[in-house]
Amino acid sequence: MTFEQRLTAEEITDFLDEVFPGAMEHFTIEAVGSMCSRVRRPFQEWRLRPGGTISGPSLMTLADTAMWVALLAMIGREALSVTSHLDIDFLRKPAPADVVAHTTLHKVGNRLAVGDVLMYSDGDDMPCARASVTYAIPSSYQG
Amino acid sequence: MTFEQRLTAEEITDFLDEVFPGAMEHFTIEAVGSMCSRVRRPFQEWRLRPGGTISGPSLMTLADTAMWVALLAMIGREALSVTSHLDIDFLRKPAPADVVAHTTLHKVGNRLAVGDVLMYSDGDDMPCARASVTYAIPSSYQG
Amino acid sequence: MTFEQRLTAEEITDFLDEVFPGAMEHFTIEAVGSMCSRVRRPFQEWRLRPGGTISGPSLMTLADTAMWVALLAMIGREALSVTSHLDIDFLRKPAPADVVAHTTLHKVGNRLAVGDVLMYSDGDDMPCARASVTYAIPSSYQG
Amino acid sequence: MTFEQRLTAEEITDFLDEVFPGAMEHFTIEAVGSMCSRVRRPFQEWRLRPGGTISGPSLMTLADTAMWVALLAMIGREALSVTSHLDIDFLRKPAPADVVAHTTLHKVGNRLAVGDVLMYSDGDDMPCARASVTYAIPSSYQG
Repeated sequence: MTFEQRLTAEEITDFLDEVFPGAMEHFTIEAVGSMCSRVRRPFQEWRLRPGGTISGPSLMTLADTAMWVALLAMIGREALSVTSHLDIDFLRKPAPADVVAHTTLHKVGNRLAVGDVLMYSDGDDMPCARASVTYAIPSSYQG
Repeated sequence: MTFEQRLTAEEITDFLDEVFPGAMEHFTIEAVGSMCSRVRRPFQEWRLRPGGTISGPSLMTLADTAMWVALLAMIGREALSVTSHLDIDFLRKPAPADVVAHTTLHKVGNRLAVGDVLMYSDGDDMPCARASVTYAIPSSYQG
Repeated sequence: MTFEQRLTAEEITDFLDEVFPGAMEHFTIEAVGSMCSRVRRPFQEWRLRPGGTISGPSLMTLADTAMWVALLAMIGREALSVTSHLDIDFLRKPAPADVVAHTTLHKVGNRLAVGDVLMYSDGDDMPCARASVTYAIPSSYQG
Repeated sequence: MTFEQRLTAEEITDFLDEVFPGAMEHFTIEAVGSMCSRVRRPFQEWRLRPGGTISGPSLMTLADTAMWVALLAMIGREALSVTSHLDIDFLRKPAPADVVAHTTLHKVGNRLAVGDVLMYSDGDDMPCARASVTYAIPSSYQG
């Protein structure tokens, strides 16, 4: 594994718009690097629960998307990777604010990629949720 | 714990429509019982990925909702329970069909409730996904 | 996938004794079938926590072993499968008694196998812990 | 939450020796700080699998212990906290070397504490395993 970044934030956004129209509609890729990414969801884009709270499934979708972005930066234009496992802990009620997801990849193997995602209400010091996500990389992929 | 069911499927649907309008828009509660539930999402309601596949976040939302339904059947009209943990494994590509979620509760304590959710493409013998979900029950709740 | 059982309980015990001496020292395979197994750990074998409670790591080891047994029944004498993911919820303080682990396999694919394990204090109706476990099957394996 | 550290590494070791004799037999607390800890298991202490590999359950035990150490540093001499959830991904075959566990706490609430544990073969840049662990804090606890 060379930890070499293959795609920029702009290239990933273009690729996702192409293979999964709408997937990035509510998300902004703020940064990608070697084995990491930062993805933001603006507050007005959230589907809220009663009381103005961001719903659990919305944060799950953010975690899943943020991990996908970090993975694509490393493996390139490979559309067929799919989530095989996700687990998430909800830690605090999110503030009525943007949520920013920081992803760290721990492994990008031939078959599986695993990373952690920490999600913060914009400006907060402690995360509102943490997730770990595994993607299965198709056997047709030639690293 | 008495394992006594407090609400019927119809009462749960009414309650969820009241406290979280839209939550049950895409779901049908087919059955609730003591420590279990069965919830269906009709195929035409899914947000599909390219290729007609049901997306991962859609199945996460189904698992979360199915667990909520099973829990409300046991604890009654308590709006403030929230998901504290969810983990999901995606096992097979879902068929272009309804998905049916079978939930089994393993614990309904004073603080936490834990259950497993098996999701099947309608008519299939093996699940397309499995999840386990933990809900935190508010300390104001008087069982 | 044919769901055909390839090894009996006795053959699995012999195989594990051979490839991982000591692995089954504290466990008894009570039953294996198509996509399922039942494994018991006698109470006197547990490493106890203060107060006579069975420790968390001991239940994790039981879950991991019980899944391995169920998998070997389906794939045969393949020593190189390894756990890639395990998650466990501790639901109740285990009684001072044997613990019986019931495993159900949900998938045995070419690369990954996934199953759920419910662990009961002997004689109890509700589980003291639940786990889900994923094993990676080596690419050298020829189903 | 004040993020104030209450116990030193030495005080935690003494406390664990007192309430759970043997728990720290194979572990060395190298550092504790505000919401974090570093715990080492020397290589010769591991129970090995065939081929000299550190077993999965051994790494689970390390993750569970490392999280406990980080938690005790924050909440003080409270023996009754127990693991309620643990999930672990095995990323790489551990080297025949010490394993060092770095724990970061994301939440220490009144009821639950949640943290991530990254485990490294000594000297490696990438982790051999990642875990997230939840502890339940007894309601008798007066923060």
